[in-house]
Amino acid sequence: MTFIEKLRNRWHSANSLVCVGLDPDPARFPEAFIDDEDALFSFCRDIVDATAGFACAFKPQIAYFAAHNDGEAQLQRLIAHINGCFPDIPVILDAKRGDIGSTAAQYAVEAFERYGADAVTLNPYMGRDSADPFLQYNDRGCVFLCHTSNPGACDFQELDVGGEPLYQRIARTIAGEWNADRNCALVVGATFPEELKVIRGIVGDMPLLIPGIGAQGGDVEATVRNGKTADGTGLVINSSRGILYASSGAGYADAAADAARSLRDEINRYR
Amino acid sequence: MTFIEKLRNRWHSANSLVCVGLDPDPARFPEAFIDDEDALFSFCRDIVDATAGFACAFKPQIAYFAAHNDGEAQLQRLIAHINGCFPDIPVILDAKRGDIGSTAAQYAVEAFERYGADAVTLNPYMGRDSADPFLQYNDRGCVFLCHTSNPGACDFQELDVGGEPLYQRIARTIAGEWNADRNCALVVGATFPEELKVIRGIVGDMPLLIPGIGAQGGDVEATVRNGKTADGTGLVINSSRGILYASSGAGYADAAADAARSLRDEINRYR
Repeated sequence: MTFIEKLRNRWHSANSLVCVGLDPDPARFPEAFIDDEDALFSFCRDIVDATAGFACAFKPQIAYFAAHNDGEAQLQRLIAHINGCFPDIPVILDAKRGDIGSTAAQYAVEAFERYGADAVTLNPYMGRDSADPFLQYNDRGCVFLCHTSNPGACDFQELDVGGEPLYQRIARTIAGEWNADRNCALVVGATFPEELKVIRGIVGDMPLLIPGIGAQGGDVEATVRNGKTADGTGLVINSSRGILYASSGAGYADAAADAARSLRDEINRYR
Repeated sequence: MTFIEKLRNRWHSANSLVCVGLDPDPARFPEAFIDDEDALFSFCRDIVDATAGFACAFKPQIAYFAAHNDGEAQLQRLIAHINGCFPDIPVILDAKRGDIGSTAAQYAVEAFERYGADAVTLNPYMGRDSADPFLQYNDRGCVFLCHTSNPGACDFQELDVGGEPLYQRIARTIAGEWNADRNCALVVGATFPEELKVIRGIVGDMPLLIPGIGAQGGDVEATVRNGKTADGTGLVINSSRGILYASSGAGYADAAADAARSLRDEINRYR
């Protein structure tokens, strides 16, 4: 089964468009993890186990592991745990990689073989040949940055390139030329709902990974109404901090489950 | 001492603009490393020791470590070796990172604190706030992609954005607005010498990291003539494969030294 098939199945079987983002920040962990040498793994595992029923995908952010010695080993264990215990839930490794072909091939090994991720986020700035080594894994997913959720998204992504903004040109290029194996998806920030609507119009039913709700201020209703496909799916709506740190007390896992369930329900009201 | 000062000192003291790229590919290692569990480290250490006298910088490419279990620990040892044995030679971690601020802060810890790199390569697509957590380390270097060396560089980087190509707008924005602490540099591929000339005109004496000579086909004479500053420096001209794999026999280290010396001399003829 390909990443896209796995995702579509999960949207329906879990009746959820919620992606649980795994951005482990030890400074915000509950007390129980203070002396835990494997806290990055243990905390995220508990969140995974608590929220799996409400998730269409998990998205570990590699930077939060890479900032620590030995963090990668814990990320490997975490993804192995998800793949072992929840094989129906796709894992999107958020790494925003991108480099010339020979180097990109190494990054593709990192994401798809070493970590066993179903999909990886990628930066399209270096162009087609920088994407090819990832695209060639045609059972996996390539999730390219299009219009990001941060304020600086306007600096270059919105520049006019011959009658349309750069992010639209990128969406059109990826949907039209890079997606021959139908293994592409795009990142579009919830903080730009009008742009989301335009992108949905360009890319057909391509999955869109949506960061930016919660801490970053994106609106759930506008995101769902502007981003969904005709069948009420098409979106992978990420929440990281709002789920992970719903409570810093002993009930952190239950609080995370409540936050994920509540986000699922809020999203479903507008599908 | 800042990254830029360290680099300027090294250009003069070593009389070299050569950057030795450390892209360790076990499939190309000499026989001596076949049973070496730390081969990524050991091979690169030998190359570093052999070529240090001819190098203005070392540039480990993190993808070649990240493709392997435990590769990061070997990269840490390698950079610690360079910092310990060759403290005058700056280390540029080639990682092409870029993400929203809170995540970028984690990547900055990865590059500057965990690995102890003097500089890191970054992707500017996400805009200013994605760069800030790196820029705030004002003694380190932020080396942003501008016009890359690969064929796909033309796909988006050369799109016209209101009278100039995107890569020029990016060069102008970084030189004008992002470089308040004078800790920025740009990546410009040797395979695009005319574009290199234009960029040099935009950015003054900002250092330019130049991939693309050797295996990728960039021309040394055109690179130096079009890219150097008035004092004959300003360039960090990378060679990876041409130095690392100059010989696959027992004399690999001597062959690497010869290749680095010979590139230094060729560059110096045109300064």
